[in-house]
Order: sequence, then C-alpha cells, then structure tokens
Amino acid sequence: MFAADKIIIVGVGLIGGSLALALKKFADIGEIVGVSRSESTLQTALERNVIDRASHSLPDELADASIVVIAVPVQVTRTVLQVIADGDYRNAIVTDVGSVKGAVMQAARETLAPDYDRFIGGHPIAGIEQSGVAAAFPELFVDRYTIITPDESADPQSVETIRQMWTSVGSTVRYVDVHRHDMLLAAASHLPHMLAYSLVDYIDKHELGNECFEFAAGGFHDFTRIASSDAVMWRDICIANAEHVAANVDAYIGHLESVRNAIIQGDGETLEKMFLNARRARNELLLSKK
Amino acid sequence: MFAADKIIIVGVGLIGGSLALALKKFADIGEIVGVSRSESTLQTALERNVIDRASHSLPDELADASIVVIAVPVQVTRTVLQVIADGDYRNAIVTDVGSVKGAVMQAARETLAPDYDRFIGGHPIAGIEQSGVAAAFPELFVDRYTIITPDESADPQSVETIRQMWTSVGSTVRYVDVHRHDMLLAAASHLPHMLAYSLVDYIDKHELGNECFEFAAGGFHDFTRIASSDAVMWRDICIANAEHVAANVDAYIGHLESVRNAIIQGDGETLEKMFLNARRARNELLLSKK
Repeated sequence: MFAADKIIIVGVGLIGGSLALALKKFADIGEIVGVSRSESTLQTALERNVIDRASHSLPDELADASIVVIAVPVQVTRTVLQVIADGDYRNAIVTDVGSVKGAVMQAARETLAPDYDRFIGGHPIAGIEQSGVAAAFPELFVDRYTIITPDESADPQSVETIRQMWTSVGSTVRYVDVHRHDMLLAAASHLPHMLAYSLVDYIDKHELGNECFEFAAGGFHDFTRIASSDAVMWRDICIANAEHVAANVDAYIGHLESVRNAIIQGDGETLEKMFLNARRARNELLLSKK
Repeated sequence: MFAADKIIIVGVGLIGGSLALALKKFADIGEIVGVSRSESTLQTALERNVIDRASHSLPDELADASIVVIAVPVQVTRTVLQVIADGDYRNAIVTDVGSVKGAVMQAARETLAPDYDRFIGGHPIAGIEQSGVAAAFPELFVDRYTIITPDESADPQSVETIRQMWTSVGSTVRYVDVHRHDMLLAAASHLPHMLAYSLVDYIDKHELGNECFEFAAGGFHDFTRIASSDAVMWRDICIANAEHVAANVDAYIGHLESVRNAIIQGDGETLEKMFLNARRARNELLLSKK
C-alpha cells in the first residue's frame, strides 16, 4: 500500500478533492492538508472529510511535507510554484494535475531550480463536467490514465513515488514526453471542448436559437456535455496550450471545409465514406476500451 | 385510444420498427404491415413481433390502408412516393418520418398530386445512434417532440389523424413551417452530427491518432456518440438539406475562427466570456427539459 507522512493538496476542487478522498480510501497517508484561498472550499472539504486539516498558509506547511500536489487552474500554478520555491520544502516532491504540461514544466523549471528535479508534472485524464470539492469522489481516477511527464533532469525516486501515488488510487500511469502530451491532449481533449463550447454559444446567438434548443435531442445533450465544464479552467488551458490548440482548431476547420464543400457539391460518396470511417473508428475505439 | 384499420410501415428500421411496436402497445390498430426490400429485416421484424405481417409488394397493400408511414432514408423517399402514386391508395393518409422536410414535401407534391393534400410530412425527433429493427423499442417516442409540417394545402382531417397517431405513442406534436423545420434541424441536429463525424475522422487521420484515441476520456466518448449514427441516413440528410447544413457549417466555422483568434492572441477575457455563456445556455437548457 502506498504510504506517505504528509501530503499537501493546494486547490481542493474536483481533482484535488478527489485525490484527497482517494488517498484516504486507498493509501496510508499520515496527514492530508488542504490549502485554498477560499474559506468556503476549506469548510466544505473539512465537513465532507475530504482533508484531515485545512491551512491558509502554504509556506508554514512545507518543511515536513512528503508531497505537494498543485491542483489549481493552470494559470495559477506558477504563483503557487513561486510560493513553494520561496519556502523551505526540503524533502517534498512537488507535482501537479494540470491539463497542460509544457507551460507548467517551464514554470517549475524557472521557479524551483536548483530543485527542479523534484518537480514531477502529472495529468490525471479524469475530468467530469462538474467542478468543485462538492463533486469530488474517491473513485474518480479508477481505470483512468494518469500521464506523468518527467524530463531528463527528473529525480527517478521522485518519479517512482508519484507513479505509485497515482497507481494506488486506481490510475494507469503512462510516461509521455511533455511536448507530445500537449500535442495529444490538444487534439483529444482541448479541441473537442472548443467545439462543444462554440456550438452551444453559436446556437445561443442563432436567430432561431431558442427553437433550436427546444428541438435539440439526446445527441445534442451528449455532444455538448463538456460545454458545462469550468470556464476559467478551460480559459487557462487554451492560453497555456495556445499553439497546439490553435493548430488543431485550424486543421479541424480545414476538415470541416471539405465536408461543407462535399455537401454543396452533392458529393454523397465523399460524405458517406467519411461518415463510415468515423463510425468505424469510434466503434473500434469503444471496443478497445472495454 | 388511437385506432386505425391498417397501417403500412415502409422501411422497418429503428424508427419504423419502433413506431410499429409503439402502435401495437399504445394504440388499437387492426393490422400493421411491414414492407421492406430486405428479407432479413422482415424476418427479424416478424420474429420480434414488431409487425403483424410482412409484405414485399407495397402496391398490393395500398387499397385498404388507413395510413402509409414512409420510414426509409430520405433519398429513397421519392421512389417510395412514386410507387404509392402509381398505385391505388384511395383513402390512405401518407406520411413520413424523415429528418429533412423540404425535399420530402416537394417530392410528395410532385408525385402524389392531385392527392398531395393527404400527404402529411412528419419528423419524430427521437433518434439514437443504433439503427435497424433490432434496436427498435416501443418507448422511443415517449416525451419526444414530433414535428409535423403541413402546408396550406393539407387536409385538416389527415393532419389531425397523424397528430393523434404520434400523440398516442407518447410524442408531443408541434406544427412547424417546413422551411423553418429544415433551418432549425440544420442547426440543432445536422450541424452537430457533421462536427462529431468530422472530429472522429480528423483524429483518425491525425499523425498521432492512435495515441489521441488512447487518451481520449469520457467527454470525447459522449461528444462523438452521434458519430456512430447510420452513415447512409446522414449522407442523405446532408444532400437533402444541403443549403441549410452548409450555411450552418459556414457560420460555425466563422464562430470557430474567432475562438482560434482569441486563443492565438491570448485573449482570455473573450474566451472566458464565451465559455461562460455556453455553460449558462446549456445548463438552462437542461433545467428547462427537466
């Protein structure tokens, strides 16, 4: 069983709160301390037994910490890293859960050096559209991938500890190059979120928007589920992974233009071929995940 | 209780089969006859008690029919209408279930005149991504809208009969102008299907496609569920509603380009505002449907 003396969770939202609950349930942790700027978040976290203790002062917690997990929106990560860098974090391994890794790894390199080798970037691919500590649950990471993006300077023992932490809560850990992570997630996650947000916003501003929504069926609801995700989190992801997200949106627009052209030209063969390929690919994907 | 002597279902797939099952369960129909070019479809329909009797000859069935429901892909509808027009359909009301109504109403006008007043275009907004008679179930239309698009020439008694038929199987019937129907559905249904098909096809052809699929999470699966829909049906819908679908794809591309620009410019304010609006609109939509 995974064991640690003291783990600090900075940002007790859906991911941070679920990790705290999961570690309580599946691991042997001396103390889990939650740090948040929000008093109500800490109150809820305490009331729901998500954390053992709440703290308003991250610097005061660092000296005896085993692991510090940064679980704040990506744009706030650098600020938290700076607080850690300015403190006495001695033996603590520092990790995060951000959906973008390039910007985070760079911020860690710039703030934590010469102890950057103890920063291990992580990303549990386990979001749901609800956010906040009230939505947290201990099984969020079960049967999910967690990507870890150690670079050549990473301390192997720290990497192994973070791997074990995620494995203990049910996650399958994969090591992925940081640049590759950001490319993959831009296509597999960030792009779909842009499409879903854009679709709902597009329909909402449509001259017949209210009627469109009225006649939207189950397919529309599933398609747009991710448009109920946290807006600030996704703003930050877009900005932090701007290059890859924009490139994917561009390439997708090109794809969509060829669909539009086939529709205008009445080119049923091209459309059917594309629809069949998408259907096959999705159905194979579903089978492979069973 | 809705009653009729004989209803012919032409095309016993998901929709046609479900309507047959629903009428058997919720209405009082003397005989439900299934017509299909596919012997195996008819066999399955008989084995599952979806229809009372199978027929390979639509012309032979028409003279004593109360209602003929055309439930074939939209591009085949004209062919079926021509067979009906060439036959002796005396007192039968003819209706359909197609997702596009302009092209269908025009085909009906051109084939059935002078009896076009007994053609009542319909569209149950009740698809699921499975297709075929094996997926049919009697509750498919419960708490769903069915749109009927009668024009000024429609026979009021025929309209009322078709309204009662759909009401009997649990559907809420709305009368919508045929042109407006095609505009609304292009935005609310046809566009999302294009986006989902395009996304899966785009990722499948991506240089890192396999890895993208591997790390795709639940959001991706929901988002792309409709990409498992029937390819031929959707090819036909695109071609039959080409103008509106293409216009919506174009307008959506414009929307997406502004998102891309905001990302490139690091314009977090615009992104957050858009994401928040989409989130609000979707959450309101969910509440309104409860």
